[in-house]
Amino acid sequence: MSAIPNVLAERYASQAIRNIWSAEGRIVLEREFWIAVMKAQKELGLDIPQEAIDAYESVKDQVNLQSIMDRERVTRHDVKARIEEFCDLAGHQHIHKGMTSRDLTENVEQLQVYRSLLILRDKTIATLAKLDARAQQWQGLLITARTHNVAAQPTTFGKRIAMFGEELLGALGSLNYLTESYTVRGLKGAVGTQMDQISLFEGDLDKVNALENSICKHLGIPEVYDNVGQVYPRSLDLRTVSVLTDLASGPSSFSRTLRLMAGHETASEGFAKGQTGSSAMPHKMNSRSCERVNGFQTILKGYLTMATGLAGDQWNEGDVSCSVVRRVMLPDAFYACDGMFETFLTILNQMDAYPAVIEAENEHYLPFLMTTTIMMEAVKAGVGREAAHKVIKEHAVATVNDLRAREINKNDLLGRLAEDDRIPLNLEQLNALLEEGRENAGSARSQVDAFSKKVADWTSRFPDAQNYEPGSIL
Amino acid sequence: MSAIPNVLAERYASQAIRNIWSAEGRIVLEREFWIAVMKAQKELGLDIPQEAIDAYESVKDQVNLQSIMDRERVTRHDVKARIEEFCDLAGHQHIHKGMTSRDLTENVEQLQVYRSLLILRDKTIATLAKLDARAQQWQGLLITARTHNVAAQPTTFGKRIAMFGEELLGALGSLNYLTESYTVRGLKGAVGTQMDQISLFEGDLDKVNALENSICKHLGIPEVYDNVGQVYPRSLDLRTVSVLTDLASGPSSFSRTLRLMAGHETASEGFAKGQTGSSAMPHKMNSRSCERVNGFQTILKGYLTMATGLAGDQWNEGDVSCSVVRRVMLPDAFYACDGMFETFLTILNQMDAYPAVIEAENEHYLPFLMTTTIMMEAVKAGVGREAAHKVIKEHAVATVNDLRAREINKNDLLGRLAEDDRIPLNLEQLNALLEEGRENAGSARSQVDAFSKKVADWTSRFPDAQNYEPGSIL
Amino acid sequence: MSAIPNVLAERYASQAIRNIWSAEGRIVLEREFWIAVMKAQKELGLDIPQEAIDAYESVKDQVNLQSIMDRERVTRHDVKARIEEFCDLAGHQHIHKGMTSRDLTENVEQLQVYRSLLILRDKTIATLAKLDARAQQWQGLLITARTHNVAAQPTTFGKRIAMFGEELLGALGSLNYLTESYTVRGLKGAVGTQMDQISLFEGDLDKVNALENSICKHLGIPEVYDNVGQVYPRSLDLRTVSVLTDLASGPSSFSRTLRLMAGHETASEGFAKGQTGSSAMPHKMNSRSCERVNGFQTILKGYLTMATGLAGDQWNEGDVSCSVVRRVMLPDAFYACDGMFETFLTILNQMDAYPAVIEAENEHYLPFLMTTTIMMEAVKAGVGREAAHKVIKEHAVATVNDLRAREINKNDLLGRLAEDDRIPLNLEQLNALLEEGRENAGSARSQVDAFSKKVADWTSRFPDAQNYEPGSIL
Amino acid sequence: MSAIPNVLAERYASQAIRNIWSAEGRIVLEREFWIAVMKAQKELGLDIPQEAIDAYESVKDQVNLQSIMDRERVTRHDVKARIEEFCDLAGHQHIHKGMTSRDLTENVEQLQVYRSLLILRDKTIATLAKLDARAQQWQGLLITARTHNVAAQPTTFGKRIAMFGEELLGALGSLNYLTESYTVRGLKGAVGTQMDQISLFEGDLDKVNALENSICKHLGIPEVYDNVGQVYPRSLDLRTVSVLTDLASGPSSFSRTLRLMAGHETASEGFAKGQTGSSAMPHKMNSRSCERVNGFQTILKGYLTMATGLAGDQWNEGDVSCSVVRRVMLPDAFYACDGMFETFLTILNQMDAYPAVIEAENEHYLPFLMTTTIMMEAVKAGVGREAAHKVIKEHAVATVNDLRAREINKNDLLGRLAEDDRIPLNLEQLNALLEEGRENAGSARSQVDAFSKKVADWTSRFPDAQNYEPGSIL
Repeated sequence: MSAIPNVLAERYASQAIRNIWSAEGRIVLEREFWIAVMKAQKELGLDIPQEAIDAYESVKDQVNLQSIMDRERVTRHDVKARIEEFCDLAGHQHIHKGMTSRDLTENVEQLQVYRSLLILRDKTIATLAKLDARAQQWQGLLITARTHNVAAQPTTFGKRIAMFGEELLGALGSLNYLTESYTVRGLKGAVGTQMDQISLFEGDLDKVNALENSICKHLGIPEVYDNVGQVYPRSLDLRTVSVLTDLASGPSSFSRTLRLMAGHETASEGFAKGQTGSSAMPHKMNSRSCERVNGFQTILKGYLTMATGLAGDQWNEGDVSCSVVRRVMLPDAFYACDGMFETFLTILNQMDAYPAVIEAENEHYLPFLMTTTIMMEAVKAGVGREAAHKVIKEHAVATVNDLRAREINKNDLLGRLAEDDRIPLNLEQLNALLEEGRENAGSARSQVDAFSKKVADWTSRFPDAQNYEPGSIL
Repeated sequence: MSAIPNVLAERYASQAIRNIWSAEGRIVLEREFWIAVMKAQKELGLDIPQEAIDAYESVKDQVNLQSIMDRERVTRHDVKARIEEFCDLAGHQHIHKGMTSRDLTENVEQLQVYRSLLILRDKTIATLAKLDARAQQWQGLLITARTHNVAAQPTTFGKRIAMFGEELLGALGSLNYLTESYTVRGLKGAVGTQMDQISLFEGDLDKVNALENSICKHLGIPEVYDNVGQVYPRSLDLRTVSVLTDLASGPSSFSRTLRLMAGHETASEGFAKGQTGSSAMPHKMNSRSCERVNGFQTILKGYLTMATGLAGDQWNEGDVSCSVVRRVMLPDAFYACDGMFETFLTILNQMDAYPAVIEAENEHYLPFLMTTTIMMEAVKAGVGREAAHKVIKEHAVATVNDLRAREINKNDLLGRLAEDDRIPLNLEQLNALLEEGRENAGSARSQVDAFSKKVADWTSRFPDAQNYEPGSIL
Repeated sequence: MSAIPNVLAERYASQAIRNIWSAEGRIVLEREFWIAVMKAQKELGLDIPQEAIDAYESVKDQVNLQSIMDRERVTRHDVKARIEEFCDLAGHQHIHKGMTSRDLTENVEQLQVYRSLLILRDKTIATLAKLDARAQQWQGLLITARTHNVAAQPTTFGKRIAMFGEELLGALGSLNYLTESYTVRGLKGAVGTQMDQISLFEGDLDKVNALENSICKHLGIPEVYDNVGQVYPRSLDLRTVSVLTDLASGPSSFSRTLRLMAGHETASEGFAKGQTGSSAMPHKMNSRSCERVNGFQTILKGYLTMATGLAGDQWNEGDVSCSVVRRVMLPDAFYACDGMFETFLTILNQMDAYPAVIEAENEHYLPFLMTTTIMMEAVKAGVGREAAHKVIKEHAVATVNDLRAREINKNDLLGRLAEDDRIPLNLEQLNALLEEGRENAGSARSQVDAFSKKVADWTSRFPDAQNYEPGSIL
Repeated sequence: MSAIPNVLAERYASQAIRNIWSAEGRIVLEREFWIAVMKAQKELGLDIPQEAIDAYESVKDQVNLQSIMDRERVTRHDVKARIEEFCDLAGHQHIHKGMTSRDLTENVEQLQVYRSLLILRDKTIATLAKLDARAQQWQGLLITARTHNVAAQPTTFGKRIAMFGEELLGALGSLNYLTESYTVRGLKGAVGTQMDQISLFEGDLDKVNALENSICKHLGIPEVYDNVGQVYPRSLDLRTVSVLTDLASGPSSFSRTLRLMAGHETASEGFAKGQTGSSAMPHKMNSRSCERVNGFQTILKGYLTMATGLAGDQWNEGDVSCSVVRRVMLPDAFYACDGMFETFLTILNQMDAYPAVIEAENEHYLPFLMTTTIMMEAVKAGVGREAAHKVIKEHAVATVNDLRAREINKNDLLGRLAEDDRIPLNLEQLNALLEEGRENAGSARSQVDAFSKKVADWTSRFPDAQNYEPGSIL
């Protein structure tokens, strides 16, 4: 039987993320790390022949997983198996000097995390660019805003999109802070004191520091811890998975809202070319991708719980109670978040609005949405505030009841108010208010502009990011 | 590049669980389900040729994942792809009649869950049998019980083991209740009303019920829902993953305690034959497997959070926002729980106690542990309770301070008390109390017997289960 | 400044639950426990004067929280403070003999849990009775079932309600299993060996067992552990909070669906008499209570995470790392679940359906919902299955597009099909199918009956429970 | 019966945090907010008499909770009740103009969050200052570092403390980023379009913006959203509670490690003056406070799950499904985190190390900890690496076995190696290595200095913060 695949990686994640977390990809990262250590050690005076380094470099891409696994079944030690494999390939024994397993694995795993974060940063920016484009496209498209899922006041579809976009901007800020402050464990030895590297360099602490600096430069990670144990603090993983969950929040709220709009047929996530709805029910346009985005966020929340299970649970200088958790949580959280972006970017490409249905909804609710304005005008025209409120409420409730009973098919609130002497406004005046209100979504349009400006700040800072296009999704 | 494997399945879970959840295994289950439906439909009068059924049966084990995936890329519908593949293999078009996708997938996934639960039930019983054997082995081995991680009163190692065993017994009860009340969705159609099966049988509801009963018998699941939508209630998944987390709790507490004991060298999880400790530090016996058990529980807690993300979130008759979550959560939770049992059973096989170190610890603390008894005897001998308490406390604190300062190497509390006139007991009497106390772990021994009896109830009920032996772990 | 109140207790929970978990209520439970222990100890031969017991009984309801808190600030030990208070009130020193703090607190807290579970069991049954009444009321009210939040097939509103009711039935089963298997820690002493009670009874283990049995009878909890440490296994708390979360799942899905229906004005949670909508927007009927039910479930999921943080984390015989967690999690989870029931029962009392709007929705979608039936009839009439599907799909998609563009206002799919020669059915025939289908919600009606029968099993088993009425909610 | 108190607030949190979240405190914040809005509205031209503003200001501290609650029972609307109360006290009707409830509540709740974050930032800095002092105090105190909870290599106690301190530094960075980027909702109206404020100012958007700017200045929160709905994005709450959990991680790992050390009697959390251990077992020093710190982190993880339940679940422009959750989660998470700091600061004040026990442990393990060094020296002296490893392992394992069997009482590994001809080092040489190693904790000491420097950066930036002293804890 073939190996059971990782469903998040294989069905949803992009190749770029898979490359980082695949067994092959990881092994190459490890080998590059060992080579970087060797080079630095040599430069700092250790007796490592250039020829050995060359030999390692020449075979670093020869990854034979089966051979490594066979070695692990004998040694029962995964790092040892990988050392032996690499050395046998190169025909030398110069890697891993003065290192403990965690000197290798922690740093390489952090590199995987860091590089994945950079990829997600770029996809976030691409997502914001698309959100911005959609917000601008529908900047002026008046829709009936809903609170408690019922009609409340007018807004525009563009502004609704910008609202969820601004949520994502907040998460991007957090992501960016995380990448800029991301801190690597470094070469710290078995309990964090660098004892073995110090022995190797005959007590020369300066050389050990120079070695570590050189390695950090190789990794390209901005910060390095001073004090760690066998492991770096697991709250860094909590911070990481927390940011991934945060990133999924804006898209998830957007998707939930699009599912609601699809239920009213005011918008839909659209279809891929050639795709049809359910075979048995061809009229159906199911919000499959939006639902999937919501599913990804649920998944991320679970990995966040795993991360909280590790943070604050370090015993002394550490152990491997976190090991199996991190083998699952870290790659899978990145696959899920990456799959979320692939899916959400596709939604943004394919989504559609149905202006005629939107307009029908507006028509239906607009008189209700204008009641605060009507009241203000009535007050200006001399009616007492409480009196005006009472009359308007009376007619509004009656109208809504008649509509629900289908005794009327069209919202005739304005007519009722015009006929009521207690309100000194005639139908013409009331209709004029309505027409004015129809175009009045407050500051919705200018808010969209403000969003565009914020997005532009990021796209100009990371100009390559915005053009990313998602792969084809299942 | 090869597919990225599911690390929980490939590194930790047993073949039995992998078989249930593998793509191949699932496809065979689906095909068997379709065949069972066809047979029942035929029996109830639908015109399905026996030859077609035979043809399907003859090819049901021919699983070509690549071919199915190629079809899915065209149809963009996983179930449709699998229907076509099976029909083309058989050369007939008789499966899936009157069925909607969820009629297939929900029932088959529930079957996977149900069968996995039965496997875990058996492994739980095997675990209890091993815990019982260890509890009996060390039923009388006096150890220093600890509360707040410091010495408190005597107990026996057997009783400590039985204590964690009894926690597992509680989880087994819940697991057993779940299996006995496990409820399958059945053939309910697109929104749960069975409309299409009813059409198929020309409105004959009795036949539709008979069909469903027949299918439930095929599945072997004890109960069937009456009212569902497109999906069965996701709180059933919550209940399932909650039980898996529960199952991991006793083993997890046990493992944590064994890690603590290893720190004192009173016990260890042992080594596989030939295994040694850390290569650089050969004296080290790392509690790698215990730590892994704790890791598995952390993982399960994350999947439980995913399950809570689905429960209570059904919109109308359902949708697929749960889909990607369940693709990950269900198999992975079972792999994790199964891997936990494989690991924990191995620990139970290999663990060891170090009676000499235990005895040294007892010696060190015993006088302290006897202070309540000494006080009672002093009171019997006529000293006031408060007075006795004051004196004993004075000497106990002084003794502990001297021990911590290493001004003394041996606990000489009894000597100090014997020399103090305020306590009317001489050294001989005090030593006699100590000797008595040394063997007095209260009802620890009889509690172990009570545990054994409870375990025997389960092993006699499921006699095959107890002999399960774990596979070799990494 | 006044004390900061517990918002869940004070705003949402019922008096019955508050009584169990209030400081005063707990103190009385503790005193009753001490008295029960004294009585049993006396009966088994300990020298405790009847007069002392009478004295304790006479003052047990005199609870002065301030006085107890003042004592705690001196002793820094909560149980000691409560012992002193009770003894001073009674003028005797006979309680807590041979007991450790946890002998008191664990058992009393479990009693609080157990009694709370019984209250929730009764409220669950009351909820099911109301769900059943609503399901019967609308057993035949045809609605458009939705999957993916879009119209799918007909069902009835009663069946939709029964669907969520059946989810709650599953949770009730789990709750009932939990209450029937609920296991109390018992009088086990500081590390679980009963050493001090055994000393008290001069080594007579039978008397110690008799004492414990007598105490368990007092508590009324069905089971008692044999093997525990200082604490009972915290996975029992996990099981408890998991059941509370489970209980909230059916109501939560129901509430979410009612919020969706309110968005379409097909149903609403209703209003309390005299209540109006938003003051500014009088037409609005906000689903505040349904939203609150969803909020309570989110809260419960958080307490479940706390419970998972304790389960599997026992060190040796236990400690108090669980203490602050349980002080928060246990009462608050019960307040939340109880508040959920109070809210949900109110919704069930006040909710309403709007048949005219429902009927308009049915009209709008019914031709689409009948396409599978039309296809079957076309096939019967001689058209090839694939051909029929193609034609129907063509017209269905065109119709849905025209409706979305508001080029038509009424679903005219049947007319289009009647005019298409490829489908050998005329308008009369098609309309006949539609009329038939209008009443055809498959087995929806009989499924409601099945639900009623299951509910009746529970109401007959616990006949008092079903009549519970919620208090007035904020 | 008195109201049920919030146990986190009343038992654990400090007065400063309680003041922010108390009902009284919140009402004053709201009234100040209304007054600030009035003032700004007046300044921008609305007709609000100065006398009215003065009247409101004069009564703003007159908070009568009972009166407000009585009003709420009538209006069933909490904000309305508070408006009426304030207006009746002032004898005017000028507050809340053009505002919706959320314009009040969101901003005030965010102010509560923001001010609480600043308090926690200061306590974090105070904690770091104390950690630094302890790290310096024990900078050179050699201890046996443990990985997998067993002896690994030497380190110093100061470095171990700095290690957990550096974890807290990471969380402080995140907290600081959060406070600097914290974004308030602003005056955005019912659906986020500012429609009612715009009406109030007769369409003058500039004035509405000026009003909002003025209000943000009043609040003192650094950023304001452009695009929101009825609510600000709930992922901001996720970010907040995530940071609180992060803050608890370093202290929690530290506390867990101190509990482990207490089990070995190498250190303890200490006692308050006058406090003794368990009354029955006076020698016991229970790590009650450390356990409580761990408990607080478990609590925070639960509130984090609640926060994830809200993030990504916004429907359209929002509703109140988050309301009950946030009423619980936000204050309680802050109480818990604040209580954690109060407890942890107390531990840092009272903790103690036991150098004699530490030294005995070092003695016991040191020969094992030096084996890598011995091997290196043997290699230098001409032995093959593999040969040296084999011999050392042979003797190390034999020694550990003899120690565990108590056949020897002292680690005599060096003697065994000296006697073995295969290792060309005599006892003198080996002892010399040991003596050297005894003082060799690698870069432990200089790492402590690096930690001190980082702490100094923060204390110089927030000089008042470092001197905070915790209140007396229970």
